[in-house]
Amino acid sequence: MNPSKVPDIVIGRLPLYLRALTQMAQDGKEITSSQELGGELGISSAQIRKDLSQFGEFGKQGTGYNIEFLADQLKRILHLDQIWDVALIGAGDLGTAIANYGGFIDRGFRIRSVYDNDPSKIGTWAGAYEVHSVDQLEKDLRDMGIKIVMLAVPASHAQEVTERLIAADVKAILCYAPISLSVPDSVKVQYIDPVLHLQHMTFYLSK
Amino acid sequence: MNPSKVPDIVIGRLPLYLRALTQMAQDGKEITSSQELGGELGISSAQIRKDLSQFGEFGKQGTGYNIEFLADQLKRILHLDQIWDVALIGAGDLGTAIANYGGFIDRGFRIRSVYDNDPSKIGTWAGAYEVHSVDQLEKDLRDMGIKIVMLAVPASHAQEVTERLIAADVKAILCYAPISLSVPDSVKVQYIDPVLHLQHMTFYLSK
Repeated sequence: MNPSKVPDIVIGRLPLYLRALTQMAQDGKEITSSQELGGELGISSAQIRKDLSQFGEFGKQGTGYNIEFLADQLKRILHLDQIWDVALIGAGDLGTAIANYGGFIDRGFRIRSVYDNDPSKIGTWAGAYEVHSVDQLEKDLRDMGIKIVMLAVPASHAQEVTERLIAADVKAILCYAPISLSVPDSVKVQYIDPVLHLQHMTFYLSK
Repeated sequence: MNPSKVPDIVIGRLPLYLRALTQMAQDGKEITSSQELGGELGISSAQIRKDLSQFGEFGKQGTGYNIEFLADQLKRILHLDQIWDVALIGAGDLGTAIANYGGFIDRGFRIRSVYDNDPSKIGTWAGAYEVHSVDQLEKDLRDMGIKIVMLAVPASHAQEVTERLIAADVKAILCYAPISLSVPDSVKVQYIDPVLHLQHMTFYLSK
């Protein structure tokens, strides 16, 4: 099957599979099954087999999946057989927490540069990163060839910064501001909005 | 239709609709359409109409949706016609960023109490909240009747804290640690893992 035809919702589950497989490998396991993986993730084994079958044949009937092999294949499919440079825009509390988070590099991403528009923050440090001014943002991102940005600025500034990211040829934005960004089809956006998750769960809670 | 039979993926889109409608209302709009809402969110208008029809009839053919009415109905469906008390566990960089985030109260949630296991943090402040010891966590949460927790502790502690939350009768956990928690079916878990979103987007990026 042509991977570009695979539904986006299926693509969205592959990183979950990869995360669970990586954990299993770290626990010293070598073989798993769609049942075990599904039990771990709360996804049916049939769904997992169907998702994976869109990209090829990764296990033999009855013998399960080789964890390391399947993880490597998923990394290849997701273009994680390389490290991606990422810029972080916004060095407030949230930006600082992101800069200090140690979980990016093992999973394919390296924060390359951190930016803020607050003169009092420029030249200070967010974790291991010196905070740079956004004055030269477009040129900086182009010079470094950065295609992925984590956007941790206030909602009121998010669209304005996004226009500059688009001008700098950024192709993927992880937006922490609680708004929907307007971008051309050629730019991917994913959102981190904790309230959406909380509101999803309250549906299931009795008052 | 019985709302308890509505697929979880549909429930997950309702908070997105509510967020977009709230933004429209703030911009002074009174009426919208499934086309406009869909354009805003990158979801087809047919999908939006189908999702909403699972819960009733919220607009008349050709006249669109009354924004305030539809937002109120979504709040009712999602049990957001009340404010939910939430506890935050973990007062590191991330916990502090969450404690300082101003976007909860307008959307149905109030941080009631913040906890950490680090003696040097107990009694200090994370934003407007005094940090409490986890020693009495189960009793505290039960006494306050808290059913929702945001979990911002290291991955190595997340399952252990989760066992205590389950014992305290917590029913919904928003987990910021990059692991899958084991919980009984009666407990809902949602995850915030920025790397999953980044890995989803790299599928679409050329190397």
